[in-house]
Amino acid sequence: MTAASDGRWLAAATRLALRGRPASNRNPSVGCIIVQKGRVVGRGWTQSGGRPHAEAMALQMAGEAAQGAYVYVTLEPCAHRSERGPACADLLAEARPARVIVGVSDPDPRTAGKGIERLRAAGIEVATPHCPDCAESLAGYLTRARFQRPHVTLKLAMSLDGCIALADGSSQWITGEAARAHVHSRRALADAILVGGGTWRADAPRLDVRLPGLEDRSPSRWVLTSRDVDGAQTIAAPHDIARIPAQYLYVEGGAQTAASFLAADLVDRLEVYRAPIVIGNGLRAMGDLGLATLAEAHGRWQPVERRKLGPDIFEAFVRTRGES
Amino acid sequence: MTAASDGRWLAAATRLALRGRPASNRNPSVGCIIVQKGRVVGRGWTQSGGRPHAEAMALQMAGEAAQGAYVYVTLEPCAHRSERGPACADLLAEARPARVIVGVSDPDPRTAGKGIERLRAAGIEVATPHCPDCAESLAGYLTRARFQRPHVTLKLAMSLDGCIALADGSSQWITGEAARAHVHSRRALADAILVGGGTWRADAPRLDVRLPGLEDRSPSRWVLTSRDVDGAQTIAAPHDIARIPAQYLYVEGGAQTAASFLAADLVDRLEVYRAPIVIGNGLRAMGDLGLATLAEAHGRWQPVERRKLGPDIFEAFVRTRGES
Repeated sequence: MTAASDGRWLAAATRLALRGRPASNRNPSVGCIIVQKGRVVGRGWTQSGGRPHAEAMALQMAGEAAQGAYVYVTLEPCAHRSERGPACADLLAEARPARVIVGVSDPDPRTAGKGIERLRAAGIEVATPHCPDCAESLAGYLTRARFQRPHVTLKLAMSLDGCIALADGSSQWITGEAARAHVHSRRALADAILVGGGTWRADAPRLDVRLPGLEDRSPSRWVLTSRDVDGAQTIAAPHDIARIPAQYLYVEGGAQTAASFLAADLVDRLEVYRAPIVIGNGLRAMGDLGLATLAEAHGRWQPVERRKLGPDIFEAFVRTRGES
Repeated sequence: MTAASDGRWLAAATRLALRGRPASNRNPSVGCIIVQKGRVVGRGWTQSGGRPHAEAMALQMAGEAAQGAYVYVTLEPCAHRSERGPACADLLAEARPARVIVGVSDPDPRTAGKGIERLRAAGIEVATPHCPDCAESLAGYLTRARFQRPHVTLKLAMSLDGCIALADGSSQWITGEAARAHVHSRRALADAILVGGGTWRADAPRLDVRLPGLEDRSPSRWVLTSRDVDGAQTIAAPHDIARIPAQYLYVEGGAQTAASFLAADLVDRLEVYRAPIVIGNGLRAMGDLGLATLAEAHGRWQPVERRKLGPDIFEAFVRTRGES
């Protein structure tokens, strides 16, 4: 196998991992593919509630075919046995694959290299190629490990000139149906969703997933406010997201909430929906960030995705931060 | 020749026509390609000051090879002789091509179908395929004919959240070098450039073309103001652009000027440069448009071009209007 084909199999495994998001919480959603002579003989992803793990699912499917196979797994196999199942490193050692290709090392101190060591001690070859796709697919888990808080996506839906409503507050609709359905599909990938107190009181948003078949995927609802609210939990300040039991938090505004998360540098991913309209002096997408110079604003956001959604344009940017 | 290859040759002719823009003013910049047995034997575009015409240039290059050839021309050949040269329809009739493929009919009442008639009367086959690229390449000329005013491009350079400066006015720099060089290349395609009085007085912009080799292409400078200004001509209201002797007017802001042109529905093309930065409560890209409902804002802008310019994104939109 070449490094390029390793990368393609790992990328395929990240797409399996997406199926476990966000239901795997608090475990990471991992993807695993077992390949024997160029054929997929096993595949799996982390199941709801975090168990069974992806490797256990894939090994169960592969059975005897795992022997001598290549195992692609987005995260280092766990080295710790729990009452809910054996360690994946042990399961793999028993199954005798020829090689295990690991996308990202597990920061969990109970594993943290021990999973890879155990495989090597069992005489199994282990490769650890650099896999940005794998890290991206584990963003929630890795953000919790590194920053002790959920991974935060900030959604903005605006006109070409950065307005989210007319001056009178009318905002139905800026973006079209396809963009709104896309927002629901993004909600379905989050454990928790948050809006500011002003938006909560003004719009009484349902913040649920209204896509056929995904209605049960609605994330827990949170409001940034110092007051009590009905129908949602609250935090008083952006840094309090540390106590939201989520890997993926989806922040939907409004402008003050968006600004307060950006000013606290708590946004990991920006998802921008833009309608091809010009509004003029409407309500702005963003409140005060306390920016003193333009230089501070540069170098933070890397475009990673773009697509047309009907007449609208979706773009995603990730916050560039140094490696941990 | 197939309709598809006709379209490709006409598209190639529009790229030749671009070389005559804006120097051909007040004549349209036309492109012409003469093809004999699949080989280009002649090509031309409208020369500075409007003469010689594209067909005359291409026929001169082709010489005898024009006989029996296919002639692709973005605009109907003129039917009117002037003291500056013979009618192109007559030149073509003499040259005896097999076929003339015309991109757009000439709205000039002195031609307006007579050029095509004269070719057909001379026994030359004429095709008039639908050619949106040709119409786009003649936008300035067609806009003058239809609306008795220049074609207007509005440029906006902004952050992701629609700001053109910090709250204190700092705007150096939002976009990067590649985007700023692109702006200069766009200025070089305009006959005239306009800013608002506020921008003129605050920034004293040079509004020239600072690209090596294109310094002499700087357009005439106009300011939207009711006061006198040094170094530029003035108009008092957007509708006064009718008296600017230009086919292509490039409007660079500021926000009030942008809004006044949009509110008057005098913008034909929007060119948006966006830097991947978020500013918050900076100065907005757009003033008041007097929009009463969101519905009015929709259905006006069609995306036609997009490219990355260093870290920034360039997007162009054209105003969708009914056919004339």
